[in-house]
Amino acid sequence: MSLVIDSQLAPFRASIEESLAKACQFADGCPPRLADAIRYSVLAPGKRLRPALVMMAAEACGGSIDDARPAAVAVEMIHAYSLIHDDLPAMDDDDLRRGRPTTHIQFGEATAILAGDALQAEAFGHLVRNVSDPATAARLIGELATAAGACGLVGGQEDDLAAEKIGIEDFESPRSARLHLESIHRRKTGALFVACVRMGAISANAGAEVIKDLGRFAELFGLAFQITDDVLDFTATDEQLGKRTQKDAGRGKLTFPHLMAAEQSALSQTSANPATSEVDFRAGIEFARAHAASLIRNAHDSLKLLGASAERLHIMADYILERTS
Amino acid sequence: MSLVIDSQLAPFRASIEESLAKACQFADGCPPRLADAIRYSVLAPGKRLRPALVMMAAEACGGSIDDARPAAVAVEMIHAYSLIHDDLPAMDDDDLRRGRPTTHIQFGEATAILAGDALQAEAFGHLVRNVSDPATAARLIGELATAAGACGLVGGQEDDLAAEKIGIEDFESPRSARLHLESIHRRKTGALFVACVRMGAISANAGAEVIKDLGRFAELFGLAFQITDDVLDFTATDEQLGKRTQKDAGRGKLTFPHLMAAEQSALSQTSANPATSEVDFRAGIEFARAHAASLIRNAHDSLKLLGASAERLHIMADYILERTS
Repeated sequence: MSLVIDSQLAPFRASIEESLAKACQFADGCPPRLADAIRYSVLAPGKRLRPALVMMAAEACGGSIDDARPAAVAVEMIHAYSLIHDDLPAMDDDDLRRGRPTTHIQFGEATAILAGDALQAEAFGHLVRNVSDPATAARLIGELATAAGACGLVGGQEDDLAAEKIGIEDFESPRSARLHLESIHRRKTGALFVACVRMGAISANAGAEVIKDLGRFAELFGLAFQITDDVLDFTATDEQLGKRTQKDAGRGKLTFPHLMAAEQSALSQTSANPATSEVDFRAGIEFARAHAASLIRNAHDSLKLLGASAERLHIMADYILERTS
Repeated sequence: MSLVIDSQLAPFRASIEESLAKACQFADGCPPRLADAIRYSVLAPGKRLRPALVMMAAEACGGSIDDARPAAVAVEMIHAYSLIHDDLPAMDDDDLRRGRPTTHIQFGEATAILAGDALQAEAFGHLVRNVSDPATAARLIGELATAAGACGLVGGQEDDLAAEKIGIEDFESPRSARLHLESIHRRKTGALFVACVRMGAISANAGAEVIKDLGRFAELFGLAFQITDDVLDFTATDEQLGKRTQKDAGRGKLTFPHLMAAEQSALSQTSANPATSEVDFRAGIEFARAHAASLIRNAHDSLKLLGASAERLHIMADYILERTS
């Protein structure tokens, strides 16, 4: 993480982690092992990017950080549950996450599945219990349920797993393959980013136009985030990311650098197969970076209406292009 | 299912299944395979006992069945998700459910996990989208989230899995073993029954006293339901239940007939080990049946305040003692 970004996130992080720790105190009915697994996952070291986005969006709309706190906690709980389940042997089968054993390695598969399941219920419960105005609570729950549901992150993960079994040759063109990959990420990671800023704005009682603009910002931000994720998977080390890198490429998964090399190659009518060409692949990384930069420019534009109050969100957008982890 | 009960549930069932089918229509973002897995699980033939209880409780409180419909649908979605996850190889590892292959057998483990995950989010989303009064929606979501959360059905399932590795000898007395088993079931199945009737009552705008009485009814109902479940596991055939019977006993799991035989034996100071005695075990089945009957008597008592309007709930309670599947 760059120093600039760290200084942006740090004040939010401490406050969010305190709220998360409190939200993960359960009554007697929760088995200690389950509570441990939940806390292990939720309180693992992390950037707290999503809850910070909730709070930054609230701030940009003139709201208070405290009003946005329940939404920030709920969003991070959903994020933590999705990581636990994504790491499972039947899914991405990852043994390392944020530099530590994944939840199912540490607590066994059954407890990991259950920790994720409990976290999802607790996220919605947390909103109801901590947002005093029921109409606001209901709106926040609607946003979160849509982002987390069958057409949101779960649908994206299903298509992402299916994409492991398909290659660029299964598509009409490199462009249609890239659009499919974008549709996966728009749901798998983008939907929750969109929910973050919309929920922050709703917590701050923002108007419909501003909520829409922030949603657009998060969509572009989320896609750029995922593109740089793919780039980092090739260029960063395991140590920097705290997880196994080059895994996606190793499994022959569709990735942005790969598809963008193919797309550019198709445009310039090169006869060589770009998917296997070393030189074109390196070019693909550059194309991907350029695409991310263009998305971020549009993200900045979408914040125009908010003016100077959105300064932190502008800084966050720039961070996407600089991230090394 | 007895004919009397079938005639009680049938009118609710058709209407609930129509609403469930509608609730399981998803927009374009939902991958067809995920939608199929969700529908396969939710629309599988079933008694629809839980949604019927929601509607019957609403009716008992003078409310309309239509007002209770969103809660009925949401509860069945949570129930369906919990069955999908409970059947997973890492959990109970069941290949048969309601006479058909379980979801992970039919669609693979990853899609099964995701279908359950999506169903949970959709259950909360359904409430928000279909309950017009936000304050009522928020209350319903609170009830459902508590029942489905770490101290509710997920906590109960965690302890249930852990109970596979412990025997009666790990407890101070047969009685403390039974109390532990009751605590498991109070969360694993009881909490959702309690949510059903409370949500029905809330949908009907019932007062606090009535909601409390109905909750008490469902607690007793749920425990009796689980005791007869254990009894059926020994006395019914696979065909009657549509799932593998005597599996719990085969795995040496704590069951009510088993523990009640031990408890009665301890009370009468028999020196023989009741856990292994064939005769005492048959007596345990009788003790369990008698205990269920006594719980159901108390369940009837808890409905006093509601008078004649709770007639259907009285009939449902009696059904517990007659059930064969």
